[in-house]
Amino acid sequence: MTAFSSYITDNQPRFVDELIDFLHIPSVSAKSDYKQHCVKAAQFLIDEFNRLGLETTLVETPGNPLVLANYKASNDAPTILIYGHYDVQPEEPLDLWETPPFEPTIRGGNIYGRGSTDDKGQLYAHIKAIESLLQTDGALPCNVKFLIEGEEEVAGENLENFIKNNHELLKADIAIISDTSQFAPDMPAICYGLRGICAVEIRVDAAQSDLHSGSFGGAVPNPCNTLCDIISQLKDADGRILIPGFYDNALDLEEWEREEFASLPWNEENFIDQLGVPDLHGEKGYSALERKWARPTLDVNGIFGGYSGEGDKTIIPAWAGAKITMRLVPNQKPTAILGLFRKYVEKIAPDYIKLTIDEHGGGGPVLVPRSAAFMEEAVEALKFGFGREPSFIREGGSIPIVSTIYEELGLNTLLLGFGLPDDNAHAPNEKFSLRDYQRGILTSARFIQQIGKTTQHN
Amino acid sequence: MTAFSSYITDNQPRFVDELIDFLHIPSVSAKSDYKQHCVKAAQFLIDEFNRLGLETTLVETPGNPLVLANYKASNDAPTILIYGHYDVQPEEPLDLWETPPFEPTIRGGNIYGRGSTDDKGQLYAHIKAIESLLQTDGALPCNVKFLIEGEEEVAGENLENFIKNNHELLKADIAIISDTSQFAPDMPAICYGLRGICAVEIRVDAAQSDLHSGSFGGAVPNPCNTLCDIISQLKDADGRILIPGFYDNALDLEEWEREEFASLPWNEENFIDQLGVPDLHGEKGYSALERKWARPTLDVNGIFGGYSGEGDKTIIPAWAGAKITMRLVPNQKPTAILGLFRKYVEKIAPDYIKLTIDEHGGGGPVLVPRSAAFMEEAVEALKFGFGREPSFIREGGSIPIVSTIYEELGLNTLLLGFGLPDDNAHAPNEKFSLRDYQRGILTSARFIQQIGKTTQHN
Repeated sequence: MTAFSSYITDNQPRFVDELIDFLHIPSVSAKSDYKQHCVKAAQFLIDEFNRLGLETTLVETPGNPLVLANYKASNDAPTILIYGHYDVQPEEPLDLWETPPFEPTIRGGNIYGRGSTDDKGQLYAHIKAIESLLQTDGALPCNVKFLIEGEEEVAGENLENFIKNNHELLKADIAIISDTSQFAPDMPAICYGLRGICAVEIRVDAAQSDLHSGSFGGAVPNPCNTLCDIISQLKDADGRILIPGFYDNALDLEEWEREEFASLPWNEENFIDQLGVPDLHGEKGYSALERKWARPTLDVNGIFGGYSGEGDKTIIPAWAGAKITMRLVPNQKPTAILGLFRKYVEKIAPDYIKLTIDEHGGGGPVLVPRSAAFMEEAVEALKFGFGREPSFIREGGSIPIVSTIYEELGLNTLLLGFGLPDDNAHAPNEKFSLRDYQRGILTSARFIQQIGKTTQHN
Repeated sequence: MTAFSSYITDNQPRFVDELIDFLHIPSVSAKSDYKQHCVKAAQFLIDEFNRLGLETTLVETPGNPLVLANYKASNDAPTILIYGHYDVQPEEPLDLWETPPFEPTIRGGNIYGRGSTDDKGQLYAHIKAIESLLQTDGALPCNVKFLIEGEEEVAGENLENFIKNNHELLKADIAIISDTSQFAPDMPAICYGLRGICAVEIRVDAAQSDLHSGSFGGAVPNPCNTLCDIISQLKDADGRILIPGFYDNALDLEEWEREEFASLPWNEENFIDQLGVPDLHGEKGYSALERKWARPTLDVNGIFGGYSGEGDKTIIPAWAGAKITMRLVPNQKPTAILGLFRKYVEKIAPDYIKLTIDEHGGGGPVLVPRSAAFMEEAVEALKFGFGREPSFIREGGSIPIVSTIYEELGLNTLLLGFGLPDDNAHAPNEKFSLRDYQRGILTSARFIQQIGKTTQHN
């Protein structure tokens, strides 16, 4: 047993008490009158980093402050950038919480409270790892930079602006984020791929106002029907997207990935039952897990036009619209895809209607190659912390900070999720397993130690 | 000049004064607290018919009363059933009226006021025709039955129920309704065809709740996309409806009809400008006028699903729905068409979604053959009243009472419109030309007289 392992075991009760103090602060970024609590949470971190002897900076922004903490080992040592966020989701609906969201409570080996898994608990695990190494080894074998924001849950732009303007300050060799989860209980995972996204709104206009469907029907275009015609030409019956060039740059799955995904304890029948869908549907030739993690999509998120109230209203609507998002896989660029979308839809739209396409922007996909720096150390650290080799997984959603870190700082990010898929992030009774908290601390400490060793050997 | 013509000319100022009294009553059927005014309007008619010596009945219903008036010439004489309604549309928006809606005002040869053309003025023309004939000839040459309701503007069911239960009482040879308009100023018309309608609502369900489009997109069906796929398979690019059997019974236009329509002063360019559409669109092989009057349609009246607010919401909606109406032409039956619709949509809907089709019922189309009884007399009467041969036109909308009269009483209805297309029915500044009012009285009197003569000759 390593020295830091014993320290972590011995100090676990205090580590839990400190996390409880952190969770007591209702740092809900979505509520403007909770601003003082967000500032208090930031100050809580600054005080803790100061106690540990790191160099700290509270960076004021137009919104909630950023917290920076820096540990300098040496100029030669590699540098880890650890990202986290101290803000939390709103606590509503309150009546569904078994214990109050900001009065953290321990039940059945879990700590319940808003922010316990997302992201205070997972972030604090890294801080306690630093403490454990410093207290047992006296120093860290590599440089560590913490970058912690207070506006993750409201998609604030202040962090992105800060990163854009502080490339030198944030220079590092690898980034780490613990804001996701294990694949399943006792199944640690490294999420090495995220999909990108681009969003668009299309609108079809015909007459200046709604028309009587009796007096005018048959003579004039119907924007609802035309919108359906356009949307139905975006994908074929097998779920393949028909926009020319759409797949040109889309990186296909490698054989090892398909094997890895197929080996996971994931079952389409269970998935169907859980969602209550009559059946699954999507691009032919790929399993459902492959499709939702690693294949691009085109989905209507909303459609609207004409009358939607009770009964009937015999009109030809003046206009109709739809919101569409496309999920992108590595090597697809949001701007390019939006351009292809526009070109195709403008081509297929008939001349008898007026078409408007509003591009709502997007974010790029992420792929951390298996050969990326420190990937092996991460695998070893998770195995050390959780007692089991991690799975390599992807995630179908987007984590904008990961793209920003890659695009602005040129860094790969290792997504080391310590939580569980059923930790109720964004929901009532959010929780974090005390065991996972401890395993997270062990993993983080081991990773930092391993990186230091690796470099010393080089 | 006939005796009744002189009488009509001499008494025109009083006829206008009486109509003004009628229009003063705010008999808005949509407003429950105006009920007393509806009853007052019914009583106004009863009093007037009593003055003329007709046998009257005020029929109480769960809603507004019906007014019946009966003139018996002889058992051998033909019988005309004249339908009208004393209720009017709501008067809002009030600030757009140049003079108050229930203070009838004469300006530029028109009488302005709610109900002036729809339908008090047009109905009252028939009553004044009866008076003129009775005062000059001492008797009518045929039997006349008035059937007047007070719930036309709210699509009440009380009249339909009354007709169903009183076939014998309402027995007649022909029905007349003046609740439409001339084709254009000084262009009298006989509307001999109406489209029917049937309505349906379809709904596509997939998952039990909205899903995150990142975590689930690509793996699961999207009800909005599937709904668009279904709707786009209902019509081809040339506007032809693809439901098998849909056109099987649809009566096509005869050559004389196409010639008649083509001869009308109606211009597609003007129509396009007036509606503000980029272009017209509809079934290939038919002019826009033919399509809107005499070809069946399938139009989405409303479509809805997922998110329609500002910005984006990255969801796979749990469900999506659409309201659809089909306009039907003679020989198409609403129930049969709804059956064909269901069969086809159930066939094309994919198995991976749950489909629900709610039939909202409908009403049959109407076609009064040119050879119908008293058609020639109607042509002659309009020529007498308006000084010009009427055009034979159709109307794309439905007038449910006309179907009911045909189906329940076996009667053809002659739609003799005295108003103008720009009389602002259902809009602010509703008007009726005093000249058209007088021409309507002349037409009605002439028609009754001609029918009496015809029969005497037979």
